[in-house]
Amino acid sequence: MLSSEIDPALTVYQEEPLNAGTPLDRLCQRFTTPPSLFYARNHAPIPVIDQDAYRLSVVGDVNTPLQLSLDELRRNFPQETITATLQCAGNRRAELMAVKPMPGQLPWQADAIGTAAWTGVPLHAVLQAAGVSDSARHVAFTGRDVARLEGQVEAVTSSIPLDKAMRPEVLLAYEMDGAPLPHRNGAPLRAIVPGYVGIRSIKWLGEIRLQAAPSESVIQTHDYKLFPPQVEKEEADWDTGLVLDELSVNSAICNPADGAAVAAGAQRMSGYAMAGGGRDIARVDVSADGGATWTTADLLDEGSAWTWRLWQAELNLPSGSHQLVARAYDEAANTQPEQAAPLWNFAGYMNNAWHRITVNVL
Amino acid sequence: MLSSEIDPALTVYQEEPLNAGTPLDRLCQRFTTPPSLFYARNHAPIPVIDQDAYRLSVVGDVNTPLQLSLDELRRNFPQETITATLQCAGNRRAELMAVKPMPGQLPWQADAIGTAAWTGVPLHAVLQAAGVSDSARHVAFTGRDVARLEGQVEAVTSSIPLDKAMRPEVLLAYEMDGAPLPHRNGAPLRAIVPGYVGIRSIKWLGEIRLQAAPSESVIQTHDYKLFPPQVEKEEADWDTGLVLDELSVNSAICNPADGAAVAAGAQRMSGYAMAGGGRDIARVDVSADGGATWTTADLLDEGSAWTWRLWQAELNLPSGSHQLVARAYDEAANTQPEQAAPLWNFAGYMNNAWHRITVNVL
Repeated sequence: MLSSEIDPALTVYQEEPLNAGTPLDRLCQRFTTPPSLFYARNHAPIPVIDQDAYRLSVVGDVNTPLQLSLDELRRNFPQETITATLQCAGNRRAELMAVKPMPGQLPWQADAIGTAAWTGVPLHAVLQAAGVSDSARHVAFTGRDVARLEGQVEAVTSSIPLDKAMRPEVLLAYEMDGAPLPHRNGAPLRAIVPGYVGIRSIKWLGEIRLQAAPSESVIQTHDYKLFPPQVEKEEADWDTGLVLDELSVNSAICNPADGAAVAAGAQRMSGYAMAGGGRDIARVDVSADGGATWTTADLLDEGSAWTWRLWQAELNLPSGSHQLVARAYDEAANTQPEQAAPLWNFAGYMNNAWHRITVNVL
Repeated sequence: MLSSEIDPALTVYQEEPLNAGTPLDRLCQRFTTPPSLFYARNHAPIPVIDQDAYRLSVVGDVNTPLQLSLDELRRNFPQETITATLQCAGNRRAELMAVKPMPGQLPWQADAIGTAAWTGVPLHAVLQAAGVSDSARHVAFTGRDVARLEGQVEAVTSSIPLDKAMRPEVLLAYEMDGAPLPHRNGAPLRAIVPGYVGIRSIKWLGEIRLQAAPSESVIQTHDYKLFPPQVEKEEADWDTGLVLDELSVNSAICNPADGAAVAAGAQRMSGYAMAGGGRDIARVDVSADGGATWTTADLLDEGSAWTWRLWQAELNLPSGSHQLVARAYDEAANTQPEQAAPLWNFAGYMNNAWHRITVNVL
């Protein structure tokens, strides 16, 4: 990987495989995240792919299995650009780990999220070319990266329901922000599944398999499932658990930073809010007293059903220590729960509690 | 209205117009709510309609305005049955009113919800027969009931986006649970908009109007909008506020009753959970200690994307006073907030805080 693909400002949680978050003060500086600052969430070493020899396989419950070169994808299919926010299901896990430890998990702050304009081929166009069999209900994506998960070695694989796969927003992307997809962001080709947890947007895509059932991969059957607080990993019934697809409503404060010392008086706050499944963010509220009283933030202009909304607010802070809070509502009037503790789950997914930071006002 | 249409067990909040809730112990006894026990939420006196003279008008941005008799609706269009839960946006308002009063509002308990099998004509079939103009973006339903709202007299009118109106689940219903629609439930014809707040399912439907913008009615422009806690009605900017369409995730305990005295030992709890927009309920958790520890409830078998799920759980209760809690997750991992206070809004909509009751264990 080119060193230019990784900004030294990233917060590195793990070197190999690379897992790194975007610094919060940079995250909300612009609507799209610079590719070099985009969060990296990997289960395996980044594979090396010869782009000339590369072929995408479309197999399984199809009438005509396909092997497509990058040129064929570009020449024979329509090209679309969709701006979409990706968010890891483990975003904000650190706050859950503070409630009760999770050995071996990465302590993501609110930094496992980013937005880019993705250009590529609508997945449904490729599926239509292959001809989807009546038996197909799910679409499994397999990357060229090979992971060791739960003691098994497997290519990173994740599936989505066919209904979602046929929607216009789901892409096979070869460009990010108008330039070739960077190596570490999944080149030469990755899935982009807007509105879903990041794991469904498989990078270094090698194979698309149509099948009757969800993937049997460890990632699909064990990971990225939400269990209740009272269940420990050792006792989990893997046939149960909420299979994480659509994202819940969430928000975070990017500025000021947690623990910052700021001057008394008018204090600007900024952050992001995101909802899944194509639902818009309807409102973001902020509080300077831990949620006793609220001010409504301004939603900045850009944004679509598939992206976050950045927001700003101004609060007047007297001197002392204050807990600043943000919470969002989506257009279905779903909002964020108050505390992280009741959201605890052994894998640390989907923490969308009110985002709380402390500032010391001088 | 026939007296047989109203069960004396209903909790009457207002006689005229009739507003009444279903007793909680009856609500969760069966998957579908008996029509005579279905909650009644009215803004106006129930109109008297001559079914023989009745015509449904389809007007506005259409190629061919239609006037359809009930016979024509039955004979010339396909018939569908959809089981759907309706829930008023004011369900559980009483808990918000306990935080801060709301003069003039009806203090609904968790009783403004019910489920039925609705039979009628898919709305899209009627819209296709009329021919939707390119300019149309919204579909306004006007009832034959006439209300006095905010000092204005207007026929009860509410609109939904055209995209929703064209979906297969939206019906013009003339039957409820296999029998003619009862008078008080909207006969001869009502809209059924599954997954949306109840107000969009206009009863005693007289007119369907295709138009470029949402309805200008008081109900659309002032009521059924969600404002933040810090905004009082007198200062509301009516151009803002979240227009309530899809329902947020919610749940309630139906048994035991709040304040009940129960015997120590195994205690069965039952209740309902509902999510909007076609999202399934993924899980319901219950607690006997105010939410410190949890047990996962059993979701009963029946249910679809457009209905509630009934649930049961068994808790072992020692003697003393206990706070029992229920909370649900939907399939997008949205869950309920803990407390009602931060959800307070001047009109008292969309309270989906954890449902809490107190029982005295003897």
